[in-house]
Amino acid sequence: MDYLDAIAWNADGLVPAVAQDAASGEVLMLAWMSRESLALTVATGEAVYWSRSRAKLWRKGETSGHLQRIVEIRLDCDADSVLLRVEQAGGIACHTGRRRCFFNLLDAGSGSPRWRCTDPVPGSTGTDREGS
Amino acid sequence: MDYLDAIAWNADGLVPAVAQDAASGEVLMLAWMSRESLALTVATGEAVYWSRSRAKLWRKGETSGHLQRIVEIRLDCDADSVLLRVEQAGGIACHTGRRRCFFNLLDAGSGSPRWRCTDPVPGSTGTDREGS
Repeated sequence: MDYLDAIAWNADGLVPAVAQDAASGEVLMLAWMSRESLALTVATGEAVYWSRSRAKLWRKGETSGHLQRIVEIRLDCDADSVLLRVEQAGGIACHTGRRRCFFNLLDAGSGSPRWRCTDPVPGSTGTDREGS
Repeated sequence: MDYLDAIAWNADGLVPAVAQDAASGEVLMLAWMSRESLALTVATGEAVYWSRSRAKLWRKGETSGHLQRIVEIRLDCDADSVLLRVEQAGGIACHTGRRRCFFNLLDAGSGSPRWRCTDPVPGSTGTDREGS
């Protein structure tokens, strides 16, 4: 069986893909892959996702240069999630300029829980979450 | 704004949640959370997911004992993916008895790429992928 046929694609023909820095272990981002994007990822050795917002193939780093070189690709027990262990070019995975997309920490301290940005954009002094 | 309202829930009212071992950095699994399951996770300090196959709340470890104690909860830049850093009880996250669900490695060596199980079930000598 073709390795692509082993995947339990969702109704939109996509599967969630988690990108993890192979060196640091940091979880960088979660994006989506189509059958074609995964095949291109395997063929090129660089992460290619499916952009749901733009409805097109998204070669990670095609504009920013922050591409992700594939170290290994893993599939989970239910065959409906993919894990990419990658080398992150430039050390920046997030479109905001941060090294990872998961920069909002749930602060459940005093009072109501709230999301607090823990990762300032390099070169910036701000720590507030953008766009909120 | 309530922290739950900050999340871009999908059309089914769910968000993908990646669970990562806080100590080892290993990515353990990807599951889904509903608004209620995330609120319960925050309230109890233990991971509660939404089981899409059973269409009900899924208190991780409720039958196996392999619960996940929450170390931190993170939200990504687009507010549509959650990262849980956890302490995995028993060191076993996968229902197959493995420590993680991502035990299938894409082996792109000679010939056609294929998924190869890298993590034997503890106590077993088999290394073939189950159910395929």
